[in-house]
Amino acid sequence: MRTIVLSAEDIVKIVEHVGLDNLMDEVIQGLTNVCRDSESERYRVPIRDGFEYQSPTEGLLEWMPVMKNGGSATFKLVGYHPNNPRSLGLPTILSSAMVFDTETGHLMGLADATFPTAVRTGAASAVASQVLAVENAAILGLVGAGTQAVTQLHALSRVFAFDRVLVYDVDPEVSRSFQDRAASLNLGNIAINTASLKDVVSSADILCTATSVAIGGGPVFNDSGLKPWIHINAVGSDFPGKTELPRSVLERSMVCPDFMEQARKEGECQQITPELIGPSLVDLIKHSRDYADRRSKPTVFDSTGWALEDHVAMEILFRYAKELGQGSRITIESVSDDPRNPYGFISEVREKRKQKKSAATRKPELVSQ
Amino acid sequence: MRTIVLSAEDIVKIVEHVGLDNLMDEVIQGLTNVCRDSESERYRVPIRDGFEYQSPTEGLLEWMPVMKNGGSATFKLVGYHPNNPRSLGLPTILSSAMVFDTETGHLMGLADATFPTAVRTGAASAVASQVLAVENAAILGLVGAGTQAVTQLHALSRVFAFDRVLVYDVDPEVSRSFQDRAASLNLGNIAINTASLKDVVSSADILCTATSVAIGGGPVFNDSGLKPWIHINAVGSDFPGKTELPRSVLERSMVCPDFMEQARKEGECQQITPELIGPSLVDLIKHSRDYADRRSKPTVFDSTGWALEDHVAMEILFRYAKELGQGSRITIESVSDDPRNPYGFISEVREKRKQKKSAATRKPELVSQ
Repeated sequence: MRTIVLSAEDIVKIVEHVGLDNLMDEVIQGLTNVCRDSESERYRVPIRDGFEYQSPTEGLLEWMPVMKNGGSATFKLVGYHPNNPRSLGLPTILSSAMVFDTETGHLMGLADATFPTAVRTGAASAVASQVLAVENAAILGLVGAGTQAVTQLHALSRVFAFDRVLVYDVDPEVSRSFQDRAASLNLGNIAINTASLKDVVSSADILCTATSVAIGGGPVFNDSGLKPWIHINAVGSDFPGKTELPRSVLERSMVCPDFMEQARKEGECQQITPELIGPSLVDLIKHSRDYADRRSKPTVFDSTGWALEDHVAMEILFRYAKELGQGSRITIESVSDDPRNPYGFISEVREKRKQKKSAATRKPELVSQ
Repeated sequence: MRTIVLSAEDIVKIVEHVGLDNLMDEVIQGLTNVCRDSESERYRVPIRDGFEYQSPTEGLLEWMPVMKNGGSATFKLVGYHPNNPRSLGLPTILSSAMVFDTETGHLMGLADATFPTAVRTGAASAVASQVLAVENAAILGLVGAGTQAVTQLHALSRVFAFDRVLVYDVDPEVSRSFQDRAASLNLGNIAINTASLKDVVSSADILCTATSVAIGGGPVFNDSGLKPWIHINAVGSDFPGKTELPRSVLERSMVCPDFMEQARKEGECQQITPELIGPSLVDLIKHSRDYADRRSKPTVFDSTGWALEDHVAMEILFRYAKELGQGSRITIESVSDDPRNPYGFISEVREKRKQKKSAATRKPELVSQ
């Protein structure tokens, strides 16, 4: 029983084969399909849980399990360490995922989930924005210009024809470097400019907030000058007390959470009463025609990060890994020929090693004949 | 940033270097130390959770997180699929574990946890039995003769000088094969015999129950003929409604759970009122002298399986892996030099590949000079 272990280099080879744009398109399409075809009802997604701590550094380590009934189960572990970039040159979010066969409990695969998490977070905003934003949205505003801003732009540029992107970050260096980071995307003639927070907020047809705002530190902009048809993808709110949007914006918007239960605990939905929340992303996509009139009104996608999105992204990644023969096949589980002998694998592995050796020493004889 | 991936073969090499007996001794000692030195207070162990299902087969997939404050975090995923042995020749319990650095969220290691789970489950019974059983225990009784019975015998034989082991399983074939499976252990002159359930139960000084009894199917033996000083390690009860012991035995015994909260939900402790439960394993070991008089009376160790035991076992495994240089070092996380660029690793990996290639083509020139 082998486990497919994907290295970062394997992922690069998959991206080179598929293309970054196609991969993003596939995740957007995959997530749309799961929501639309009632596929989501086949999944079990418990609310995520985690360890939060202040020592050795401010951090959060969360587990996000998801299981497809009769299919596979994905366990994503995601670390959120906001000091990573400054102190260690590492991304704030580092993540890995295991995929299990639910028939046997066998570990089928292990892979990075840092890249898939960034991709699927972008994809989720694209899925929601396709229904909620004005179709001819021309200006994308980004508040917070870190990692997630890159994939927000990437995903949204796959489904909208923007003229301009306006970027603001509390750290001017991060604002400035955004253009370089966006350079690897095939954005054609979209102009990317830094701007004041006020200009970003008032110019945007679609606004994405993806900040590391502190708990209790929100909102990250004031409710002033927003376009009447503004659609906001609120990406940064993912912890009790951590919110990005002014409450007044939420109160006059249709607020669509990715995962209702979690959004009420960790998302923008913390700020409003239950009757102001909904539809969920699944209901929005399933009944998208019912929401056609919402494009001209303010809407919010409350994106806390949904394990089902991870499942979609990881499935696509492993499908390509299998197709392309990427990844190491490693026997990880210490399983014996006799399933009731916990130590049998020790002598079995030794025996196989011996046979291999004797086969290797026989070879030269054959050559010399 | 590399991740150490241990294969089954790497684990065999570690076992060959350390010795199976020494490894078991180290886990017993490690667990004892953690309990005794208040080390346990430095750990966070949420109650485990999981997916339970009847399709595609009867199964349970559980996650068992544990974190040492200021240290590492271990996430064990454990599958319980009772049809595995008969249908697929696989063990009922298959398990894998990831170890994370809590400073960054980096995945430090991945390894099988099937073998470590079996070892630590044995070790836990040894730790409890050393305090609760009669010191000159001569006869070990095993009810249920599957995988876990092997490690119960192994662990207990490291701390007791048994004369005889009596074995019973509902499946006579499993009873019969037990002797062969125990043959790989260094048991010296201990006689291992199959016996009737009644004889196993009435002869034992220490009794271990490790069955796959169905939910609601307990008890697995009747409360009749037990020795007055019986110590029972109840290993099989690990799910709501799944218990192995007669309630009357629990009611007249001191019942010591590995993890109080979990044992009341999933263990033998389900059957009794809270005031009859305790001390916990940690309190038992920390204040072992206070319980000296309990050796002559009936006692039960309610072993539901504790993530802290996993942490101890995985730490020992990875310590040896590092010492011996075992395991593959794989760059799994797709991390860019610029922590704010989610796609930067793609061009960086390409660049490194190019440099490698050009270095490889330069080599022959040097040789030909």
